Amino acid sequence: MSETEPAATDNAARAGAILHIDLAAVQANYRALAARTNGACAAVVKADAYGLGTTRVAPALARAGATTFFTALLDEAIAVRHSLAEITPAPVVYVLNGLAAGPATDFLTHDITPALNSLGEIETWAAAARAAGRALPAAIHIDTGMNRLGLPPAEMDVLAAEPDRLSGIDVRYMMSHLACAEDPDHPLNSEQLATFTAARARLPKAPASLANSSGIFLGSAYHFDLVRPGAALYGINPTPGRSNPMKQVIHLQGKILQVREIDAPRTVGYGATHRAAGPTRVATVAVGYADGYLRSLSSCGSAWIGGQRVSLIGRVSMDLTTFDVTEVSRDATRPGALVDLIGADISADDVAESAGTLGYEILTGLGHRYHRVYSGD
Amino acid sequence: MSETEPAATDNAARAGAILHIDLAAVQANYRALAARTNGACAAVVKADAYGLGTTRVAPALARAGATTFFTALLDEAIAVRHSLAEITPAPVVYVLNGLAAGPATDFLTHDITPALNSLGEIETWAAAARAAGRALPAAIHIDTGMNRLGLPPAEMDVLAAEPDRLSGIDVRYMMSHLACAEDPDHPLNSEQLATFTAARARLPKAPASLANSSGIFLGSAYHFDLVRPGAALYGINPTPGRSNPMKQVIHLQGKILQVREIDAPRTVGYGATHRAAGPTRVATVAVGYADGYLRSLSSCGSAWIGGQRVSLIGRVSMDLTTFDVTEVSRDATRPGALVDLIGADISADDVAESAGTLGYEILTGLGHRYHRVYSGD
Repeated sequence: MSETEPAATDNAARAGAILHIDLAAVQANYRALAARTNGACAAVVKADAYGLGTTRVAPALARAGATTFFTALLDEAIAVRHSLAEITPAPVVYVLNGLAAGPATDFLTHDITPALNSLGEIETWAAAARAAGRALPAAIHIDTGMNRLGLPPAEMDVLAAEPDRLSGIDVRYMMSHLACAEDPDHPLNSEQLATFTAARARLPKAPASLANSSGIFLGSAYHFDLVRPGAALYGINPTPGRSNPMKQVIHLQGKILQVREIDAPRTVGYGATHRAAGPTRVATVAVGYADGYLRSLSSCGSAWIGGQRVSLIGRVSMDLTTFDVTEVSRDATRPGALVDLIGADISADDVAESAGTLGYEILTGLGHRYHRVYSGD
Repeated sequence: MSETEPAATDNAARAGAILHIDLAAVQANYRALAARTNGACAAVVKADAYGLGTTRVAPALARAGATTFFTALLDEAIAVRHSLAEITPAPVVYVLNGLAAGPATDFLTHDITPALNSLGEIETWAAAARAAGRALPAAIHIDTGMNRLGLPPAEMDVLAAEPDRLSGIDVRYMMSHLACAEDPDHPLNSEQLATFTAARARLPKAPASLANSSGIFLGSAYHFDLVRPGAALYGINPTPGRSNPMKQVIHLQGKILQVREIDAPRTVGYGATHRAAGPTRVATVAVGYADGYLRSLSSCGSAWIGGQRVSLIGRVSMDLTTFDVTEVSRDATRPGALVDLIGADISADDVAESAGTLGYEILTGLGHRYHRVYSGD
């Protein structure tokens, strides 16, 4: 296929690795997730769209039908707003970190909607509404067991007793966030659902939003009026332990700089942790932990070359990683040849499992030195 | 001190964390390292100057006296070259990944010097010299036991037998790289030194370079004509297990978004991994693994608030991390207050130890969402 060689551009020729991002796959994932719910489907694009590039990903999602976007930080929301300038009607862009993420005036200036996480933030936004002389939109984030962001139970009680605190606020959604949705058998899921339902009953009537990517797969009881997938849009498996219903989005290819033949008892890399057991061909690839290719992959990661799996040997270093390519043809491992670090044969989830983390961290760590190629959309 | 509050700029107010980078400390570290050797002292600025920002760090190092710079990738070298445009005479900028990092013509266009890692690269560069009608500068990288980059023993033998292969190449340095320099008792150090010395004796006479940051502390036998510190410039301890001779360079402060009071048996965060043992105050800070604050810090990291250590509880999530601030005053933990994630009380090396990695990975992972404040220089 056309991706086996770098594009003949200066940037690709000078890059240590090439990151292909399939926007059509992101769009297909959005449509597949939206089709699972009777309500609306937002798109979570925080952390630079999980490392894939907000300015390309957010417009692609808007063209696939997304009209509601979630970010964590205010500057992220402003970047999303700018990236969607051509989209009509203007999508709604939320900041999950709420008014602690920046001044209320900045939210108004850039048409950004906060998720309000406390009575204090509700008070600030209500005051901003009075000053503006109009109702201001917001989501109200209720903490139902994550204990991270959102109104704690005591503040919920106050709000239920004094609903006028919401005066001037156009409550678009009552929302909460699931802590264990990736494990459908975890008892906290149904506890959070019950807590959320009980809280809604005590508050002024408003649409509701609870489910993240994995929450969508917990069933329609969790869907309410808006689901908020993030990771699944980008190909991460929302149903760990079962087959992945999402399309793969990224393909990361590292460039071989050099191949050497070594024999026992020679060692490879920092700390001399890998000792050759016999004649070995070692390929040095121009990707390292400075690219987000985690150092915890040392001695346990793998990659693929032309349908063959190769083992990562020694330690991942800052800019370089070494693989045992003894079993791969010399032609496929010449300097300049590309190795699949993430792709059809090895997903971001697979890499994460080797590294002892989640696919989410593999995506958000994707390096800024990669030459990025977008397709689709 | 003045750093306890964010600067009153829009960017700082909207950031989840503020990263202070002390360029005067980088310069002091450069001078201290240079003072330890009778030869020259280069500055390694690959990986965006170990995450601290090449465009600010490289000129500061040049003003401190550095005239030789090392990068990994060609695009990094070009960025360094641009950042040093005002410095005279023009510093020398090397690319460690050699001619596999990009076309020889790009090296010439941007006045970048390759470290040549193989006979093939020597042949390419010699041909470029013939085409240019002048000698072209290069370093020759000899592999002495790292087995990652550089001429392997068999190619060394060829070069020793056929030194004319270097015709047209102005060999500025014969260089190699130490695999275990951070462990002064590792036998590979003296083996590499002996191999390097023997190799030099068989090749045309040229200045030599072997020591990285830790190698400088192995003693003058390792210094040769040029030392190449990287991590130590940025405050990482080049002598692990002993006191750190370098000045701390970075101070990372995360912003508290919200504080909540919980009691047993409530849990905190994803996977409900942390269960409160009793009344607990939990602060949610706007930093997560998308900022390079590694997920492996989950349940084992720590931070400091006003001289008090606080424990990271639960899992690090993408944009948020939670700390137990039960013992800290309410005033010091109000929303908007700053928590020291890296600083005087907790170094990048300390964070790395909790995360099971090296300070190098903490630095190169430093997030692009941080509001960066440079001082000194």
